[in-house]
Amino acid sequence: MGEERTDPPFGKVVIIGIGLIGGSLGMAMRARRLAREVVGVARRPETVSEASARGAIDCGGTELVAALPGADLVVIATALGLTRRWCEAMAPYLGPHTMVTDVGSAKEQVVRDATAALHHPAMFVGGHPIAGSEQKGVSHARADLFEGATYVLTPTPETDPGALDRMRTLVADLGSVVVEMDARSHDRLLALTSHLPHVVVSCLAAAVGKITQDNPAARRVIGMGLMDTTRIAAGPADVWTDILIANREQILAALALHLDVVTELVDALRAGDPDRVAEILARGQTARQSWNT
Amino acid sequence: MGEERTDPPFGKVVIIGIGLIGGSLGMAMRARRLAREVVGVARRPETVSEASARGAIDCGGTELVAALPGADLVVIATALGLTRRWCEAMAPYLGPHTMVTDVGSAKEQVVRDATAALHHPAMFVGGHPIAGSEQKGVSHARADLFEGATYVLTPTPETDPGALDRMRTLVADLGSVVVEMDARSHDRLLALTSHLPHVVVSCLAAAVGKITQDNPAARRVIGMGLMDTTRIAAGPADVWTDILIANREQILAALALHLDVVTELVDALRAGDPDRVAEILARGQTARQSWNT
Repeated sequence: MGEERTDPPFGKVVIIGIGLIGGSLGMAMRARRLAREVVGVARRPETVSEASARGAIDCGGTELVAALPGADLVVIATALGLTRRWCEAMAPYLGPHTMVTDVGSAKEQVVRDATAALHHPAMFVGGHPIAGSEQKGVSHARADLFEGATYVLTPTPETDPGALDRMRTLVADLGSVVVEMDARSHDRLLALTSHLPHVVVSCLAAAVGKITQDNPAARRVIGMGLMDTTRIAAGPADVWTDILIANREQILAALALHLDVVTELVDALRAGDPDRVAEILARGQTARQSWNT
Repeated sequence: MGEERTDPPFGKVVIIGIGLIGGSLGMAMRARRLAREVVGVARRPETVSEASARGAIDCGGTELVAALPGADLVVIATALGLTRRWCEAMAPYLGPHTMVTDVGSAKEQVVRDATAALHHPAMFVGGHPIAGSEQKGVSHARADLFEGATYVLTPTPETDPGALDRMRTLVADLGSVVVEMDARSHDRLLALTSHLPHVVVSCLAAAVGKITQDNPAARRVIGMGLMDTTRIAAGPADVWTDILIANREQILAALALHLDVVTELVDALRAGDPDRVAEILARGQTARQSWNT
């Protein structure tokens, strides 16, 4: 009698780092019954309490090793720069069937670190949900953060096909759209579509801020354009520092493409040439409009 | 018997150019009963019909001279580059008490042009409502566009005090906050807070667009960060070309400030120095957060 119950696709899931992304992942997996149990690991006990109170985890603690026994999937959702250390710390305690993934915004270094540190690197599948905001911490976590989002997976030729398949299913179950590519392609594309914008508008905000900090009139003439343009510059500097350092070669290449266009526009402005200015603006306009669909 | 009625503060108001700003101004003045009559002048008769149907004007036409007799206030709300021509065309038909204003985003050249062309330049008060969007045309006009917005007035020492006072009242009656400064200060500040962001993100969109146009995977990894950052790049290229050309000296100076910070960040990335990267990002973060209040 009673309803038919199916087992959730994952058993025990351990999430290391219960911030905006880790916490949202826990909430989403619990809300959608994708795991038998979600266990959180955080540096500070207060974070564990808050994550628990917000329904992001079933239980948790500050000790990684205590959380690992019986884990089906371990998600690394801490700062990018710590991935290697986490992999080294967990490696001796993971069985051959425990999957490991991460949510980092730069993937080449992560995949290299995980492959080097884990004893069963075929069970690692790098991931990057393209979701989030300028906010930080489990207090901003949301069960629907991944709905409709693109979620990149970066398998290698050595990745276990079964593990990759389970990750694909998990991503789809979260309501996200799976896109697969190698880590290097990911980093090259994200350098352009995510890291470059962050670099550019952070520098813009810093430059404008130098004037607005001492000039109330300058602050009063700030319109919605500047506010929207620089929203992401309010994002956590520590998280972004890790990303920019990890992917700096690709970012410098992307920045060079951008500065080529800036130089074109500077030349057109110096020449007072409206046709050339209009042509450059039209290119930006066309590009931006094409992304709306 | 009946309600007490006060005369509206303005008699006949002629709005030249019934687009997003001109149309919204007409709607707001009519909704708030700030004019006895709002007359629109547009190049195309279809624009007059649409403006009329949307309630942006009481009546209108395509002939400037036919609209002018008896005007209390003329608002120039067309492309920045046409201001001089409009002033020259209307000058012979304006009485000594007719006020003239504009809504242009760059003011020094406008004030110079109006002062040179009008027969009664003391009745000209330059204006710039810091409102609008990446949209264009009377179809996007809204009666509440100016509510809570900053509205800059740029009088000169020669401006008629009575005319300036009436403009201050009009701006307040629109629900906007008046800020007064000379045209040069306006252009220097707006170069930083509005024109520079437009330049930077237009070049960003053009650079990223060069990759995304041929690469479906690149389009799929575009997140909300890039979308928000480049929203204003979708704005009308012709309108922005006029602004950038008119204010190009101040914009080039603002761009130099921005590129100084970009150069700092490039150096820090090349050196792989997380502390310097973090320090630059923190400056942008602090500035952006300070604008929220």
